[in-house]
Amino acid sequence: MPLWGGVETGGTKTVCAVGTGPDDLLDTIRIPTSTPDETIGRIVQFFRQKQATEPLAAVGIAAFGPLDPNPDSPTFGYITTTPKPGWANTDLAGAIRRELDLPVGFDTDVNAAALGEHQWGAAQGLGNFVYLTIGTGIGGGAMVGGELVHGLSHPEMGHIRIPHEWGRDPFAGFCTYHGDCLEGLASGPAVEARWGQKADTLPKDHPAWLLEAEYLALGLINLIFILLPERFILGGGIMQQAQLFPLVRRRVQELLHGYLPFPTILERSDEYIVPPDLGSRAGVLGAIALAQQATR
Amino acid sequence: MPLWGGVETGGTKTVCAVGTGPDDLLDTIRIPTSTPDETIGRIVQFFRQKQATEPLAAVGIAAFGPLDPNPDSPTFGYITTTPKPGWANTDLAGAIRRELDLPVGFDTDVNAAALGEHQWGAAQGLGNFVYLTIGTGIGGGAMVGGELVHGLSHPEMGHIRIPHEWGRDPFAGFCTYHGDCLEGLASGPAVEARWGQKADTLPKDHPAWLLEAEYLALGLINLIFILLPERFILGGGIMQQAQLFPLVRRRVQELLHGYLPFPTILERSDEYIVPPDLGSRAGVLGAIALAQQATR
Repeated sequence: MPLWGGVETGGTKTVCAVGTGPDDLLDTIRIPTSTPDETIGRIVQFFRQKQATEPLAAVGIAAFGPLDPNPDSPTFGYITTTPKPGWANTDLAGAIRRELDLPVGFDTDVNAAALGEHQWGAAQGLGNFVYLTIGTGIGGGAMVGGELVHGLSHPEMGHIRIPHEWGRDPFAGFCTYHGDCLEGLASGPAVEARWGQKADTLPKDHPAWLLEAEYLALGLINLIFILLPERFILGGGIMQQAQLFPLVRRRVQELLHGYLPFPTILERSDEYIVPPDLGSRAGVLGAIALAQQATR
Repeated sequence: MPLWGGVETGGTKTVCAVGTGPDDLLDTIRIPTSTPDETIGRIVQFFRQKQATEPLAAVGIAAFGPLDPNPDSPTFGYITTTPKPGWANTDLAGAIRRELDLPVGFDTDVNAAALGEHQWGAAQGLGNFVYLTIGTGIGGGAMVGGELVHGLSHPEMGHIRIPHEWGRDPFAGFCTYHGDCLEGLASGPAVEARWGQKADTLPKDHPAWLLEAEYLALGLINLIFILLPERFILGGGIMQQAQLFPLVRRRVQELLHGYLPFPTILERSDEYIVPPDLGSRAGVLGAIALAQQATR
């Protein structure tokens, strides 16, 4: 079996690994995500060393966005309009492809994580599911008919608009673009700004979590009405608060008001709304899945 | 070229036709949608007469929902939980398939209309788009990667939740399930109940249309954040009010607040949010497209 390379480029750190899957991650390094030149240089150096002993079939790159994931676009492989200093309009995938002379797969970190969960984790065997990460921001990836959803570009699910009950929650929202979109109401920074303390320091029975579950459930039912996914995988720092899962499951059922009486949603909700299986390795494993896809 | 049959089963009338596409609809009949037995009997009778002179390759059925469009399900082809008297749990597609001994395609009227627009209308050449009908209800179909979206079942886009500005619009909403979901705020009956007169009798400069455009734009940006479609096709009775199109286009751009700076959305919005091409024939032509798909 050939070896694959995976790169997860995050806002602060970049993870590189080679392997074939979760039981076989041969080597992993973490480097800071500094300037594009320096970061790409260290990524290339890592894989060149690997290539010296064993050939790689392809490299997958799971990157922070916005980015251009469309293979037919002239800017395929670019980080596009990111506010991260120095990274706007960076040809990340192209640079790695040229330096290593290998096929590259390229998509958002969250699409890659969805692909990894499909291949080895909580979405195995499902052709239609949604992966959401709820942390510093809220992002999502979806699979429909066995393929990751791409339209004009990759999805940006965090910015959907939901009802905001001002009486119950006078917090105006934290999104610089939209104020009280889902990300503006329910991301980690929103929770912290609303309650005046870091989310992970709030007690498990704090009313913050009921409100958080309300907003997440509103986001999920919108996704249900649009995609009717077979499963939701909810990851990210906020979802480390395991008490959220039963709260979100119950509110999703209540908010549907009997409209979509699917046993999957109403009777087996602990299998319908689940945490990721791959944990902190989802990104780099997703990148390896992207590499495998790149040579399909 | 073989001939195909198409059936559009609406809440009050059923349309049957044979042909190969919009330039070649050989024969069309309209019958009332009465009881299932009587309606299916007349559908079968129509196609038997056609078969007597020229063989049909397949029949496509575009039906009101909810229905089961999953070919692997034991209730594939059934109208499922409809409130329409007598029609719940009706094996519509199975009955037609057995009586005519032909392959059948089966999906919602709105998914079929999307497929028809893809094949012959406003979505030709696009693999990712959304078709919405805004009328007595609000329904939607989507294509992703060249295939109609199905998850656990067909999409029900009308019931997504959006912000409701109570100060500007104290109308509580008209949806029996969810009150002020998109359908509850923006369908034809909602407009009529809010303003006390039928939507098509409101003057074109009535504030009703600005409010309607606001709600539709909120629905569209949620679909943009989730699917990033290459185009929206908006049909249905309400969208006969052509003044809505520029209002919706502008509000979509404004509500994005520069977050997704795609020229397709910002500079060519008159090609991004468009009316259907197939008009009132969309349903039955979509059914013929379903028939063609059934024998692929």
